[in-house]
Amino acid sequence: MASIYLASKSPRRKELLETIGTDFEIFECSFKEEIQPNESVSEFVERNTKEKALHAIAMLQAKNSLMLPVLTADTAVAIDNQIFGKPVNKDHCISMLMELSGRSHKVFTCVALANIESKDYEKVNLNFEVVESEVFFRQLSANECSRYWDTKEPVDKAGGYAIQGYGSAFVEKIIGSYSNIVGLPIFETCRLFEKEKINYWLT
Amino acid sequence: MASIYLASKSPRRKELLETIGTDFEIFECSFKEEIQPNESVSEFVERNTKEKALHAIAMLQAKNSLMLPVLTADTAVAIDNQIFGKPVNKDHCISMLMELSGRSHKVFTCVALANIESKDYEKVNLNFEVVESEVFFRQLSANECSRYWDTKEPVDKAGGYAIQGYGSAFVEKIIGSYSNIVGLPIFETCRLFEKEKINYWLT
Repeated sequence: MASIYLASKSPRRKELLETIGTDFEIFECSFKEEIQPNESVSEFVERNTKEKALHAIAMLQAKNSLMLPVLTADTAVAIDNQIFGKPVNKDHCISMLMELSGRSHKVFTCVALANIESKDYEKVNLNFEVVESEVFFRQLSANECSRYWDTKEPVDKAGGYAIQGYGSAFVEKIIGSYSNIVGLPIFETCRLFEKEKINYWLT
Repeated sequence: MASIYLASKSPRRKELLETIGTDFEIFECSFKEEIQPNESVSEFVERNTKEKALHAIAMLQAKNSLMLPVLTADTAVAIDNQIFGKPVNKDHCISMLMELSGRSHKVFTCVALANIESKDYEKVNLNFEVVESEVFFRQLSANECSRYWDTKEPVDKAGGYAIQGYGSAFVEKIIGSYSNIVGLPIFETCRLFEKEKINYWLT
């Protein structure tokens, strides 16, 4: 039986969570926030992840579904405080990747675990962690970015690239957590699981 | 048709090479060297990788096989100049992981590409790169290391862990190349491919 819900449509998060042997069920729920004025990228992913978790719990309640802890995450790619979202078309993708070319950028992921404490849903226990990693890209040409778009990999990726796919050819070095860059920081997720007594391979 | 031979039995290297869309064939050939006195870990993996490549070419010649460029790699996990090999049994694995616990260690991989230049096999063009990354482990208990051994994951892994598997729960942070730590540095492999005009998704 599942120990938690993973409230995410991302196949990468699903794969990462499988890596550590957690029994989980996907609970799909759409939720996307815009960054607010004066909010840092770190604050943005934190707020977004927490709100996603509360939204998922509300939906589970509304549907009268079996209540299990809910895991949510949100990832943002940024330089300074400018967020690079998903590319909307080829030109957008090329210009985004050319901005990442030959320099480093940051990847922020917040992971949150929401647990219902009382049976009447009145108390939600929300634990979370925000993780920041740095990714160093080699110099790219517009032609390389164009060919990368043609592989179809960038379409649904924050920042327009996937470090676990063809995009790995562009990444010289990282400082931080690889799984955070993919979309779910495993080390910190395990720490949340230990705190909340959720099963994974080690517990 | 395959562009190169991958002379490695490691399923991890095979997966990584698939990531960048290279057409290759596995050419299995056993080869293992011991570290020599006064040799650094970096020099050791470099020598080992180059000798593996030349050994593979000699075997291909001897078998009269189709001659294609040969890719080889060797990975070593080390603290200072002490190499942590594959664990031989549970006690060895536990004591190895306890030495990696709560601190950082280095992972060195050399990747080499050997190309026959003349038809009579007289000239081998050997390009290579040595990559060094740093891995930070959280504090581990002997009980956790014991349970990790029981998952069977450590058996055939240098240093007794797999960063891409259950072992990810132990890794707080890395500095360098994730694929290097898994066993084949993708960024540098692509650079060798570009130099030698080997096909991958971008070329």
